[in-house]
Amino acid sequence: MTTVRMDQLSWVEYARRVREESPVVFLPCGATEQHGPHLPLGTDALLASALCEDVAARLAGLVAPALSYGYKSQPKCGGGQHFCGTTSLDGQTLSALVRDAVREFARHGVTRLVLVDGHYENQWFVSEGIQLALRELGDGHPLRVMRLEHWDFCTPATLEAVFPDGFPGFALEHAAVIETSLMLHYLPQLVRLELIPDDGPAEFPPYDIYPTRTEWVPPSGVLSSARGSTAEKGARMAADICEGIVAAVRQEFCR
Amino acid sequence: MTTVRMDQLSWVEYARRVREESPVVFLPCGATEQHGPHLPLGTDALLASALCEDVAARLAGLVAPALSYGYKSQPKCGGGQHFCGTTSLDGQTLSALVRDAVREFARHGVTRLVLVDGHYENQWFVSEGIQLALRELGDGHPLRVMRLEHWDFCTPATLEAVFPDGFPGFALEHAAVIETSLMLHYLPQLVRLELIPDDGPAEFPPYDIYPTRTEWVPPSGVLSSARGSTAEKGARMAADICEGIVAAVRQEFCR
Amino acid sequence: MTTVRMDQLSWVEYARRVREESPVVFLPCGATEQHGPHLPLGTDALLASALCEDVAARLAGLVAPALSYGYKSQPKCGGGQHFCGTTSLDGQTLSALVRDAVREFARHGVTRLVLVDGHYENQWFVSEGIQLALRELGDGHPLRVMRLEHWDFCTPATLEAVFPDGFPGFALEHAAVIETSLMLHYLPQLVRLELIPDDGPAEFPPYDIYPTRTEWVPPSGVLSSARGSTAEKGARMAADICEGIVAAVRQEFCR
Amino acid sequence: MTTVRMDQLSWVEYARRVREESPVVFLPCGATEQHGPHLPLGTDALLASALCEDVAARLAGLVAPALSYGYKSQPKCGGGQHFCGTTSLDGQTLSALVRDAVREFARHGVTRLVLVDGHYENQWFVSEGIQLALRELGDGHPLRVMRLEHWDFCTPATLEAVFPDGFPGFALEHAAVIETSLMLHYLPQLVRLELIPDDGPAEFPPYDIYPTRTEWVPPSGVLSSARGSTAEKGARMAADICEGIVAAVRQEFCR
Amino acid sequence: MTTVRMDQLSWVEYARRVREESPVVFLPCGATEQHGPHLPLGTDALLASALCEDVAARLAGLVAPALSYGYKSQPKCGGGQHFCGTTSLDGQTLSALVRDAVREFARHGVTRLVLVDGHYENQWFVSEGIQLALRELGDGHPLRVMRLEHWDFCTPATLEAVFPDGFPGFALEHAAVIETSLMLHYLPQLVRLELIPDDGPAEFPPYDIYPTRTEWVPPSGVLSSARGSTAEKGARMAADICEGIVAAVRQEFCR
Amino acid sequence: MTTVRMDQLSWVEYARRVREESPVVFLPCGATEQHGPHLPLGTDALLASALCEDVAARLAGLVAPALSYGYKSQPKCGGGQHFCGTTSLDGQTLSALVRDAVREFARHGVTRLVLVDGHYENQWFVSEGIQLALRELGDGHPLRVMRLEHWDFCTPATLEAVFPDGFPGFALEHAAVIETSLMLHYLPQLVRLELIPDDGPAEFPPYDIYPTRTEWVPPSGVLSSARGSTAEKGARMAADICEGIVAAVRQEFCR
Repeated sequence: MTTVRMDQLSWVEYARRVREESPVVFLPCGATEQHGPHLPLGTDALLASALCEDVAARLAGLVAPALSYGYKSQPKCGGGQHFCGTTSLDGQTLSALVRDAVREFARHGVTRLVLVDGHYENQWFVSEGIQLALRELGDGHPLRVMRLEHWDFCTPATLEAVFPDGFPGFALEHAAVIETSLMLHYLPQLVRLELIPDDGPAEFPPYDIYPTRTEWVPPSGVLSSARGSTAEKGARMAADICEGIVAAVRQEFCR
Repeated sequence: MTTVRMDQLSWVEYARRVREESPVVFLPCGATEQHGPHLPLGTDALLASALCEDVAARLAGLVAPALSYGYKSQPKCGGGQHFCGTTSLDGQTLSALVRDAVREFARHGVTRLVLVDGHYENQWFVSEGIQLALRELGDGHPLRVMRLEHWDFCTPATLEAVFPDGFPGFALEHAAVIETSLMLHYLPQLVRLELIPDDGPAEFPPYDIYPTRTEWVPPSGVLSSARGSTAEKGARMAADICEGIVAAVRQEFCR
Repeated sequence: MTTVRMDQLSWVEYARRVREESPVVFLPCGATEQHGPHLPLGTDALLASALCEDVAARLAGLVAPALSYGYKSQPKCGGGQHFCGTTSLDGQTLSALVRDAVREFARHGVTRLVLVDGHYENQWFVSEGIQLALRELGDGHPLRVMRLEHWDFCTPATLEAVFPDGFPGFALEHAAVIETSLMLHYLPQLVRLELIPDDGPAEFPPYDIYPTRTEWVPPSGVLSSARGSTAEKGARMAADICEGIVAAVRQEFCR
Repeated sequence: MTTVRMDQLSWVEYARRVREESPVVFLPCGATEQHGPHLPLGTDALLASALCEDVAARLAGLVAPALSYGYKSQPKCGGGQHFCGTTSLDGQTLSALVRDAVREFARHGVTRLVLVDGHYENQWFVSEGIQLALRELGDGHPLRVMRLEHWDFCTPATLEAVFPDGFPGFALEHAAVIETSLMLHYLPQLVRLELIPDDGPAEFPPYDIYPTRTEWVPPSGVLSSARGSTAEKGARMAADICEGIVAAVRQEFCR
Repeated sequence: MTTVRMDQLSWVEYARRVREESPVVFLPCGATEQHGPHLPLGTDALLASALCEDVAARLAGLVAPALSYGYKSQPKCGGGQHFCGTTSLDGQTLSALVRDAVREFARHGVTRLVLVDGHYENQWFVSEGIQLALRELGDGHPLRVMRLEHWDFCTPATLEAVFPDGFPGFALEHAAVIETSLMLHYLPQLVRLELIPDDGPAEFPPYDIYPTRTEWVPPSGVLSSARGSTAEKGARMAADICEGIVAAVRQEFCR
Repeated sequence: MTTVRMDQLSWVEYARRVREESPVVFLPCGATEQHGPHLPLGTDALLASALCEDVAARLAGLVAPALSYGYKSQPKCGGGQHFCGTTSLDGQTLSALVRDAVREFARHGVTRLVLVDGHYENQWFVSEGIQLALRELGDGHPLRVMRLEHWDFCTPATLEAVFPDGFPGFALEHAAVIETSLMLHYLPQLVRLELIPDDGPAEFPPYDIYPTRTEWVPPSGVLSSARGSTAEKGARMAADICEGIVAAVRQEFCR
């Protein structure tokens, strides 16, 4: 077997590889969150996992089981917590989950760990979990941790090509062209293009209101139209992201 | 699409089904834990998920994304925390994870939830998470939650057939005949029969010692030999388990 | 004074003994929980304490004050949380209590600690507390901790004698023959044999339901009849348990 | 049986009394803490329990099992955490313990609960636990909770008689005349008068230093001399305390 | 007195105003964090407080005492946790602080609360605190909470004027032109223009590394040069921010 | 700049001073709490800060930003949690806040830290936070922490002069002569002498009741009359307190 998936390896094989090869371990951080009528609830974990597998394949790395539940969806980036199906964790739960996982990878002897975030709302609580684990491990521990959102590795040229009318920014890219195209690339059987709504782009004021002003969010949950999504665009972005992460890992962890 | 996997459904479809069909939702609770040289680290989540999908298919239910990380492995039932690859959570983290998930399913309008445990060590912390969520929801809330370990649904006749020399009890059935046979039934490509060790049965005294007496545990991590595992045995046990859970759900939730 | 009870010793005497004799310290872990109409609410802590005192007397050990409150009663092993009088802790509270106590014994210089559990539901949260304390203390700390449920030390021969019609297993032994006999041995004035109900044996399905299906549990709270309990049976079991724990301690801590 | 001890009652009897008599329930809050060479480590829980039993007997109340571990000993009132034998809880642990217990008594239907503190350091964390439980129970819940330190019920006349040279204040009364005399009254077999040291009175500046300035505290742990302690003084103070608590309960809970 | 500062009002006056005027209450959320050699450590709380006071004055609102400590500084937006002087909270601490404060304002009868964030890193943990409090308060509670970062209210025209060479984005605006100009407007005596370093703009890769790559961050802590800062620019931005928040409050809370 | 206020210093200057001068750092611990009709809600933080600044000026020390929110007000010392305007933290929140701050000062290289408490209810939770931080830092860490309530440094002679009719004790000194006089000394513009009520002295029984017996507390929130307060008395007490703290710091930290 030449799988990159940690959950498909025996511990004996995993241990041998950690000991002999010091592989980079990737931990996909997803969510269970509404992604409009055309994308599945698992989009964030599925994409983060698929990208991690691609990257790991190029780096002889390993991919740990994804965190399938993430931090609470916020209206401006994920539609908000009022959607049925969105299944979220408290911030402290997510941070503890990450802290525990990082502590364990450190115990295994992993020294190069990459947390790949596919859910915008996760990032601060994931970072906190990493920092809590590193505090516990103490100064001088050899573990190094990279954390990233995958879409940040799309190059300007690609974004220009994907958004011929101008890239509206990542803010509204929830269940929109980037995620839909990436899903068409990786998991087209889970995309229902015919159900893409005409909603969006959502317009948000420069503040948040709690309890959520649900009227700010299109009822479909789509913050910006996914029209124009194609598998080719997805492939191009996936290539950027994978190359970008590969380069980043080489830059930071392989010198 | 006729998937039972929640992460493959759009929120619109999920919401429609919850509203119109009040489906039973299954949450597989697994672990990332050594399972000897012949089974993968993800065995517990993979099996719990596979069984949930089978059960859900018969009940028109849904399967939520598995909890892929579980409570700390203990020597007598999972080999212990000294194995490389075993990646575990603190008890409080797991309970919080379950509490948050249950709270969210309640918000969705789910009233029938089944947590299917594939990792023995999880059970008390999963139960605690359920109880914490129900306390929050308050008396009178319509949510009903079932919690189970899947192997408990093997019938005596099946256990007799699977263990012609006598069933040694579930205690040592870690990476042994039950799990190996179930994996041969569901995911044979992840089983490496040729690597089954001759270890076991482990013998444990009627007490625990911390820090772990690692010498109590076979170095392979297998507590009882997996020899004699077959896909047929796996199929028979899977049939029992699925029928058993279906019957339990009908008994408890469908009257 | 030749007491084994830590709470009856002055700190000066305790410190001298810890320093000079390195005594094994026993921490009884009980509960305040219904035990049917014939046994008192404090049964679990009272029995665990009594057994610890017997064991400690033979080993020149010490017995710390019992934890008198334990984890939430579960229907299948303690009747459940719907009984008036059952007074239980959240899992995190119990784990924190144990963690703090273990941390303190370590500070005292105690290197051999035995947690004797008299309440089935405690075990995982007690284990978690021990593991959290040991993580804090760090690798290389000399403290060794044993954890056990006392009834597991009854020998097969004794169980055969105590249950002439066949031992039904520990599962239903709540407020039944084992606990009642042990109480008749240690604290007969607290047993009201005339109130033993005819309930049981309770039959439970292989799953849990939350909120508790109270109709599964006999209204008396007794899961299996206590009829046939005698002080003699109690004495025999107590002898087994004490000898077993003494032997375990000698095996693990005294070489 | 006419015991006031909840742990000696069956749940059936306890439930009947709660239902029919609405008894006042007393929860003694103690500690395991050095009390000089002449008093045992369990003094705080033992005295709080003994006083509660006396009070409960007069009020047809009940006494729950004592909290035998308390908050960290502080130099100025308990000698500090550097003494061997002192076995203390983190503040959050103690507050959670109290919160859980109060929540359970509320579930039982108890409406009058008295927490009797025998360890000065407990008070704020016990109060916090009560307040956390009441917040959970919500406005309008019938539970009323009294909290007190027992020594505060000694009358001025008694203090004058007990301290003919002038009462130095409760601050230094750790393992001193009040506690020693009360122990001589209730548990004389645990007092070793011949070991009373000549230490004290300790003098403390109006500030705390962490880590503890252990040189501030007499090596015996006694903050003020216990010389002059007698069972008669203990009896007089116990009478004051019991009468005072009885009157307080009548005043607050019985109108 | 016509102060808007809650800490300068008596409770009687505060209570009267809450009862009679239902004022909008502003809670400034700052930090104690390095802001280069030319700005003080308290910049975030000082600016958030000053802006809140200006806004409150126009809306007859009130300003609660600032949270002076914030979440951990991150390299890309605040320089990182390796700077001496930066004094930060764990995420859970900050969320609890906000949750407790929101719970209390709700108890006061405040129904319109605005959390004004002056420290970029705070936002997710502040949001979590708000959401935790609202969950506790329950559906149907009248409290509405706005949360914002103040700089987001600068208009495009203002940003164009302030940055004649093009606005580099908020990302690097730490201790740079925006904060320095606002400080020159509000608290010029705390700005040391002569110490503005030539550092920056810092260039960061699209990922984070833990432990912090301190070499990514200019040793001064300034991520982008503050040169060109003037009190006039500060006044113009302050005017924008105040007008923007006033308009937002009127839009959301005053209809 | 010769400020003692840490929030007014740049990190560069702060770091230089910590490195070169090892200054004593003072952390004022206040509250937002009713102080009758004549004193502002911020009294505790304002006074603690003012006193810290005076002391720091004499010792070339530094004053960190005050903790402006404190532990829950209790009836007997702060009037209780039923007052509008009182804005309090849970005990665990305050302890975490202090723990985090102490951990950070330790990271800065501060070795002499003084927490000056201006809110009676804070003390135990502040102490717990200090102890939690020191446990984390480990034995042998050079940080030393002093903790105090400022009023404890008034000399007997001063108290005699301030209270010519006899000092009633600190217990009832909430919003009374000490705090009012100190405010008249430091912040007279925030005192409204004409609104001093005639309430008090409050009389409390030797126990607490939860939920709060609000009828025990004067409706004004003043536990003892503030009549007779003068700026001169405030100046005298402030002088005592400052001299006392200066002497304490010299005694403990400067030898």
